[in-house]
Amino acid sequence: MTFKVTILGSSAALPIRGKHHSAHALNVHEQFYLVDCGEGTQTRMMECGINPLKLNAVFISHLHGDHLYGLFPLVSTMSLWGRKTPLDIFAPAPLGELLSCMDNLLGDGPVFEVRFHAVDTREHAMVYDNKVMEVWTVPLRHRVPAAGYLFREKQPALNVRKEKIDYYGLDISQIVAAKRGEDITLEDGRVVPNDQLAYVPYVPRAYAYCSDTMPSGKIAGLVAGADLLYHEATFAAADKQLAKQTGHSTTVQAADVAQKAGVGRLLIGHFSGRYKEMSTLVDEARTVFPNSEEAVEGRCYEIPIKRNF
Amino acid sequence: MTFKVTILGSSAALPIRGKHHSAHALNVHEQFYLVDCGEGTQTRMMECGINPLKLNAVFISHLHGDHLYGLFPLVSTMSLWGRKTPLDIFAPAPLGELLSCMDNLLGDGPVFEVRFHAVDTREHAMVYDNKVMEVWTVPLRHRVPAAGYLFREKQPALNVRKEKIDYYGLDISQIVAAKRGEDITLEDGRVVPNDQLAYVPYVPRAYAYCSDTMPSGKIAGLVAGADLLYHEATFAAADKQLAKQTGHSTTVQAADVAQKAGVGRLLIGHFSGRYKEMSTLVDEARTVFPNSEEAVEGRCYEIPIKRNF
Repeated sequence: MTFKVTILGSSAALPIRGKHHSAHALNVHEQFYLVDCGEGTQTRMMECGINPLKLNAVFISHLHGDHLYGLFPLVSTMSLWGRKTPLDIFAPAPLGELLSCMDNLLGDGPVFEVRFHAVDTREHAMVYDNKVMEVWTVPLRHRVPAAGYLFREKQPALNVRKEKIDYYGLDISQIVAAKRGEDITLEDGRVVPNDQLAYVPYVPRAYAYCSDTMPSGKIAGLVAGADLLYHEATFAAADKQLAKQTGHSTTVQAADVAQKAGVGRLLIGHFSGRYKEMSTLVDEARTVFPNSEEAVEGRCYEIPIKRNF
Repeated sequence: MTFKVTILGSSAALPIRGKHHSAHALNVHEQFYLVDCGEGTQTRMMECGINPLKLNAVFISHLHGDHLYGLFPLVSTMSLWGRKTPLDIFAPAPLGELLSCMDNLLGDGPVFEVRFHAVDTREHAMVYDNKVMEVWTVPLRHRVPAAGYLFREKQPALNVRKEKIDYYGLDISQIVAAKRGEDITLEDGRVVPNDQLAYVPYVPRAYAYCSDTMPSGKIAGLVAGADLLYHEATFAAADKQLAKQTGHSTTVQAADVAQKAGVGRLLIGHFSGRYKEMSTLVDEARTVFPNSEEAVEGRCYEIPIKRNF
């Protein structure tokens, strides 16, 4: 029951040698997702051992090139590799029009189905779910419509304790009822409360991606309790005015969101190229939220399984 | 009077680790041009010490992603860097529509003027010139409309030999006339033929870029005498059928074009990822045209100045 995030790129818009534009790869229960897709993402995926053909869905936060321009070549490569599985792409609406425009003008469109889903960047809404996970939009505050994404495991089905099955001599129908959360009445009339029979196998985990954005209390509320939060911190604390002018956050502002949201761990990135010492930026964040780290490109951040039994 | 080509990328469509999609950077008399612009071209330019802001024009051969998808982020970066100089882009017509479509849908278009020029891929026509160079389209034979480009120095102005000025006591008007190619009549009635006074300072040089294409006698005719020819060789000689099916050339076919065209030097590239030994491919080409080489990524190929005096 894997839940991990690989930072393919987390550099700000102006390219820096050896760094890469925004793209995070998620592995949730061996299903694969991409959040943002800057130029070179397909190469970064290969370098990090992530097979583009295994992608289930791509979530784009906003339509600035440094979060988007790797998508077209990635789709093209999947097509050349003969992908058959449809690919879901979630993004602000104009991307859907642009994809159609490209198909019409360039020809040689993908040989697999691209299912485009326009997200409303003003709403906190569930846009995707499967058996084990939901994805929710998180309205961001940037210069253009932008949404973060919250990846949250669903509450798992109850497991029934094997030793209790034997102890009480439960039959199949009683085991199924216990898995549904019901108390069980034994043949002798005794009632066994469900929590003595069944347990939640793990506590749902959550990862939130918030880039690009100015800080916001609303964001903090929506990502509250996430185990791992990636929040952009384009600027150092001293450059607060610049952050405001450009619709970005400082290190301290990102940490403040993490602190208000009570997340487990904060990753900061999207640092402006003007800063040479990443450790100084992380130190700034730690003054507000000690469990802050740099989102290091190529590194994989795992959220370990949590049990409350 | 530099004339050199830097291979930023020359890999075929399917991405290969450590290789890059098509893009060649030209420096002709310290003016800079780009031919094709695969994903990651801006990064490759920086790695090769070529400043994107110095680009005069971009020439796109055809609208397959591996020759194109680096253009949007490159334009975006130049805009973020505050480029003011207009940029000329030459390509098949649909790219112009796509650029408009992107401007309309994504907003935040470039802050400098992008001057799009649709090229007719069926014509051999001069599409660009400046004081020292002309660029001509070379119709290619691919699955989609495609044009190669021939970069040809113009015939330079004549230089007048200093020692002859002194010897004949030429005045300014006679020097100017000699530079125009005229014979000079001296005061004593003697006529000095122009070729005794003036000389061509260098023989115009030419570089031709032909990718992607099937081989063609017509191409050979159009690039005849080029000092340097880049011709794609996606397939080994044994895979001739595959080359034909996909609208590409083999090593031997590329070399045959070079031989027919009587070029100085042949660079082959755009090799399919199925081949592991580039030297074998080059050896195949050399059986037909001995002066064949691999277009090695990151390498700069200079055409030295040629004088015929």
